[in-house]
Amino acid sequence: MAPEIPKEQWAQVFEKTGGPIEYKKIPVQKPGPDEVLINIKYTGVCHTDLHALKGDWPLETKLPLVGGHEGAGVVVAKGDLVDSIEIGDHAGVKWLNGSCLACDFCMQADEPLCPNPLLSGYTVDGSFQQYCIAKAAHVAHIPKECPLDGVAPVLCAGITVYKGLKESGAKPGETVAIVGAGGGLGSLAQQYAKAMGLKVIAIDTGDDKKKMCEELGAHAYIDFAKSKDVVKDVQNATEGGLGPHAVLLVAVSEKPFQQAAEYVRPRGTVVAIGLPAGAFLKAPVFGTVVKMITIKGSYVGNRKDTKEAIEFYRRGLIKAPYKIAGLSELQSVFDKMEKGDITGRYVLDTSK
Amino acid sequence: MAPEIPKEQWAQVFEKTGGPIEYKKIPVQKPGPDEVLINIKYTGVCHTDLHALKGDWPLETKLPLVGGHEGAGVVVAKGDLVDSIEIGDHAGVKWLNGSCLACDFCMQADEPLCPNPLLSGYTVDGSFQQYCIAKAAHVAHIPKECPLDGVAPVLCAGITVYKGLKESGAKPGETVAIVGAGGGLGSLAQQYAKAMGLKVIAIDTGDDKKKMCEELGAHAYIDFAKSKDVVKDVQNATEGGLGPHAVLLVAVSEKPFQQAAEYVRPRGTVVAIGLPAGAFLKAPVFGTVVKMITIKGSYVGNRKDTKEAIEFYRRGLIKAPYKIAGLSELQSVFDKMEKGDITGRYVLDTSK
Amino acid sequence: MAPEIPKEQWAQVFEKTGGPIEYKKIPVQKPGPDEVLINIKYTGVCHTDLHALKGDWPLETKLPLVGGHEGAGVVVAKGDLVDSIEIGDHAGVKWLNGSCLACDFCMQADEPLCPNPLLSGYTVDGSFQQYCIAKAAHVAHIPKECPLDGVAPVLCAGITVYKGLKESGAKPGETVAIVGAGGGLGSLAQQYAKAMGLKVIAIDTGDDKKKMCEELGAHAYIDFAKSKDVVKDVQNATEGGLGPHAVLLVAVSEKPFQQAAEYVRPRGTVVAIGLPAGAFLKAPVFGTVVKMITIKGSYVGNRKDTKEAIEFYRRGLIKAPYKIAGLSELQSVFDKMEKGDITGRYVLDTSK
Amino acid sequence: MAPEIPKEQWAQVFEKTGGPIEYKKIPVQKPGPDEVLINIKYTGVCHTDLHALKGDWPLETKLPLVGGHEGAGVVVAKGDLVDSIEIGDHAGVKWLNGSCLACDFCMQADEPLCPNPLLSGYTVDGSFQQYCIAKAAHVAHIPKECPLDGVAPVLCAGITVYKGLKESGAKPGETVAIVGAGGGLGSLAQQYAKAMGLKVIAIDTGDDKKKMCEELGAHAYIDFAKSKDVVKDVQNATEGGLGPHAVLLVAVSEKPFQQAAEYVRPRGTVVAIGLPAGAFLKAPVFGTVVKMITIKGSYVGNRKDTKEAIEFYRRGLIKAPYKIAGLSELQSVFDKMEKGDITGRYVLDTSK
Repeated sequence: MAPEIPKEQWAQVFEKTGGPIEYKKIPVQKPGPDEVLINIKYTGVCHTDLHALKGDWPLETKLPLVGGHEGAGVVVAKGDLVDSIEIGDHAGVKWLNGSCLACDFCMQADEPLCPNPLLSGYTVDGSFQQYCIAKAAHVAHIPKECPLDGVAPVLCAGITVYKGLKESGAKPGETVAIVGAGGGLGSLAQQYAKAMGLKVIAIDTGDDKKKMCEELGAHAYIDFAKSKDVVKDVQNATEGGLGPHAVLLVAVSEKPFQQAAEYVRPRGTVVAIGLPAGAFLKAPVFGTVVKMITIKGSYVGNRKDTKEAIEFYRRGLIKAPYKIAGLSELQSVFDKMEKGDITGRYVLDTSK
Repeated sequence: MAPEIPKEQWAQVFEKTGGPIEYKKIPVQKPGPDEVLINIKYTGVCHTDLHALKGDWPLETKLPLVGGHEGAGVVVAKGDLVDSIEIGDHAGVKWLNGSCLACDFCMQADEPLCPNPLLSGYTVDGSFQQYCIAKAAHVAHIPKECPLDGVAPVLCAGITVYKGLKESGAKPGETVAIVGAGGGLGSLAQQYAKAMGLKVIAIDTGDDKKKMCEELGAHAYIDFAKSKDVVKDVQNATEGGLGPHAVLLVAVSEKPFQQAAEYVRPRGTVVAIGLPAGAFLKAPVFGTVVKMITIKGSYVGNRKDTKEAIEFYRRGLIKAPYKIAGLSELQSVFDKMEKGDITGRYVLDTSK
Repeated sequence: MAPEIPKEQWAQVFEKTGGPIEYKKIPVQKPGPDEVLINIKYTGVCHTDLHALKGDWPLETKLPLVGGHEGAGVVVAKGDLVDSIEIGDHAGVKWLNGSCLACDFCMQADEPLCPNPLLSGYTVDGSFQQYCIAKAAHVAHIPKECPLDGVAPVLCAGITVYKGLKESGAKPGETVAIVGAGGGLGSLAQQYAKAMGLKVIAIDTGDDKKKMCEELGAHAYIDFAKSKDVVKDVQNATEGGLGPHAVLLVAVSEKPFQQAAEYVRPRGTVVAIGLPAGAFLKAPVFGTVVKMITIKGSYVGNRKDTKEAIEFYRRGLIKAPYKIAGLSELQSVFDKMEKGDITGRYVLDTSK
Repeated sequence: MAPEIPKEQWAQVFEKTGGPIEYKKIPVQKPGPDEVLINIKYTGVCHTDLHALKGDWPLETKLPLVGGHEGAGVVVAKGDLVDSIEIGDHAGVKWLNGSCLACDFCMQADEPLCPNPLLSGYTVDGSFQQYCIAKAAHVAHIPKECPLDGVAPVLCAGITVYKGLKESGAKPGETVAIVGAGGGLGSLAQQYAKAMGLKVIAIDTGDDKKKMCEELGAHAYIDFAKSKDVVKDVQNATEGGLGPHAVLLVAVSEKPFQQAAEYVRPRGTVVAIGLPAGAFLKAPVFGTVVKMITIKGSYVGNRKDTKEAIEFYRRGLIKAPYKIAGLSELQSVFDKMEKGDITGRYVLDTSK
């Protein structure tokens, strides 16, 4: 009854930081007692994968490395201790491949803050291969009605923006401004926000993005390049001109951040989820104190966020546009990514 | 039965920004329908009073002005609509003299964020006089067992640090680092923290302050001038070296702020309550996001915070050291304040 | 510019408990310093109005009394202290006509718990007249784009169910079961729940109600009369059979309450908002403890809830079906109400 | 270096429900990959152990069974996957021996609600033996400065009351009434409440208990047998007569529960933590709704609660009085327990 598992498989591997990445056959691993082996069918490609290859983040990767952390597939083997998922179930490999489940942070459901995390495609081999190992307690459970190609980008991008919206504390009926609303993360964020009963002020630039944001149901669109006073324009788009209850910065740089601290409503929250190298959050003390503003960082979601984010997708409330390529074509996807030529997400078919 | 109210009274008044302040007789006002008249017995002197006189804050004061916003006394008259307090009751005049009670912020118990506040000793006459007008719904109710001189500094300094601790989200048993722990606000903050079941890491400099902090029950004292690595030292003073759950910055400047963002525990909160002119909060995006840190500003307390802060004082859990001078001596108190010669608070006896 | 205010007006008045109510001319009152006078255009009729007339609640009414607490109209006069609303603005008179704004509960934005409330159409004259007095700080602000007849039922029924949903703690994406989903309150609750991003399990009986609930977007409908095991059926309608995160009981009686305590998800919340005379909440200690269930009562909304509930209506997300009659026809509306002949709400036109 | 582990050990075992329990030698088990073996030095005896023996709870026990779930000792062996604790560390076996760590409840840090729990001394062998197996992720970490006999009762009784206080939502400075304050759980609850900054109203009967409660720092003592009106007396012991913010029922029976629902402050919370067989929570709908009261059940603490409860003990803030007997004397301890002859807790020395 159990599926046949080959000894060897296709994978994208690099031996040293900077590459090159090589598409080749490598052995299939066996899961440990608390692990599963997932036959990856599709995997998204994220900017982080490029960072891993280039080695331009402070944290070192495992070497040689199989990258990738948005893998969706089928469980084909599991360790003796595993009761929480069955062979044949659909499952996803995400950035947080595993955590200790016993530290202070794991104990409070903040697994992403575990000081000893396993990071897919970074400190352990990830989803750019046909058979990937993952800790059973951490894999995303994917309902069978979700297409595995479509759900792949939800496993990282979707969860991250959903978590950011939760962290914002904005409640149904309240308004959230999304800075970078027209990009990949931004368009996902808009859809999650809407599904959560929030009103959206989309901030980005260009008429194409304006059209897209309006189609997604944004209550207002502010073109930061055309606006003479972004702060005023954002505030004017809110009830009583008080400003949005929360701001989600999907691509933090310093100027938008400072503007956000100015236009956010008193008692409001500015959430940063992007990770630009070397950037700083900066806000005037006086305004922050007198308006009682909260500024916070939001990282990836925990397992509960993962489950919830996928459930919104399952219900058809989230569309994450993507193009499909073969796993063998990863390098060309990276090339496009470096040139900034990608709109939406690339999802790789591991059978090609 | 009603107390006799004179036509004239002693007050400290200045006609124009920059002063001089003049100790002279002025008329006693009559309360409006929703106001009370309080016979001020004692009033604290706060740094803000000096800012009001010098006019070095962005917000303009009323002119001529009677300063002061830590006044404690006895209700001697009240308007027709006032049911919430009686003649003869003890009451306090605080920074927030009144607010609209009907805007979005007043409706959510954030009266300090009301866009149309009355500020004692700033936009309306304050407590540097013998008879002061205040909105009945906003006066602090002072139990008769509290001495009016002792409670005066609680009305601003006490409430402010108590509010900051509440905003920090730190829960009983958790650890809060207090930066500037040995100063006037800091020592109050330590006492409130202890009464709230928190463990305190006191951060300041000098052996006198060390001794004082230890007597107040601090679990650790870090001398920022002697420490070779403040971040490490603070973290090492916490369970597992994870850092304090919250940091209270009672005198925000940029360097301590950045350190706080580094040593605070993942998921922790840094609260700024000081108002240094022109200072900025600044924190690296990467660490803030990956550690999911919250940075927030806390202004003065609302009416509920006021009641709670006074109740802790009534129970004998808070000692705010102060010296008494006469109302007529205000200028010399300001002189000492400018020289930085004051430890603890000055409280003025309005009968002198 | 100010509107002309007549000396006399039409009203529905009763002199003694039990009635009769009399449609007659009475004087128009003048607002006090903190009050407004509202020219009521439309007023809803609520079951509470019938309780007031019959005197079958423990609390005594004012006598003689003008009932009504869902009045929508135009501000035509205001007292000297009133800055929060202008003549010509649209405003609503709701159950909580006024509160002290200074007690412990008012200070924490729980005005409905004020021990000295003014209750419209119960302890003060209400909206069954053409010109009604209300405390300015408490009137509902109605945007001009909202029709005054349509918004009237939102002022009591809408706010109450919205508050109940907020009190349930259910978050976007979670599931709430609504017991009595097909009734007037229930159908409003379903719409608010949907607007708040919640999934709804509608519990009621009959195929008409089934159809209506499905049209309103309910994820499941349980017919409690047909179901052989309501507890199982409700649980089976939820993910993993764990039960709904919250239950809203719009018409509490003992049996549905006990069922709710059984089928609610561990850590879930059962909210009672109905007020059946003499009924008891009853739940087994063992299950309540071991499943860590919360049971709570929710009364009417505060001023912030009011504003939010109206905003959902303004956005077109809430339809409250109603029939219009003349103010003069109140008795016949009461007659229908006693017979249980009313589906939806009756709204009275005060000009007829 | 590793400690020598014997093949056999002393244990208290019963073969069938109802007993008898037999003190005899049984084999020492080997830990699985995610387990540890703990050399139990001391173990508390809890009423639940008696229920397990008698089989009078709805849930069946494992048979034959070694009871006990308050065991404190030293880790002597561990499985291959275990990184979170080391051999030689002190550790505690508590009621929740293990949970799946992957279900909806484990994912939200509600491990006690896991549908597949391992319960020490109930569904798996517990601490009435010298060497006990436990899931590594679940054992309590005990700092070496804590005496193993003293900490044993904290592992169940302490955590449970601490959790109940957290669930009550009472904040520092607020008042909690503890019903059954003079008993074993009650006296622990009083100490935790004090350490958390809460004011305590102790409710119990008798002058001995009165004295004890006053020594523990209770702000008021209400003797329910002497009081003519418990509701009034409790309310009068609070500020403004509004009632306590929370009530903790350590031994729920129906009458005290209904009283609690009456005297609790509006917006207050009544927490039930006891598990009397067959008892019901019962409260009038009208009062519950109009006062917006919350009633909730609290079960045992999760792993974070465990850590926190032990930390309060480590700091010397909690004294749990106990008597020591030998493990061989368990039957006589049960005998005393059945007669109600025990004040405080019995702790068994497993070497005797």
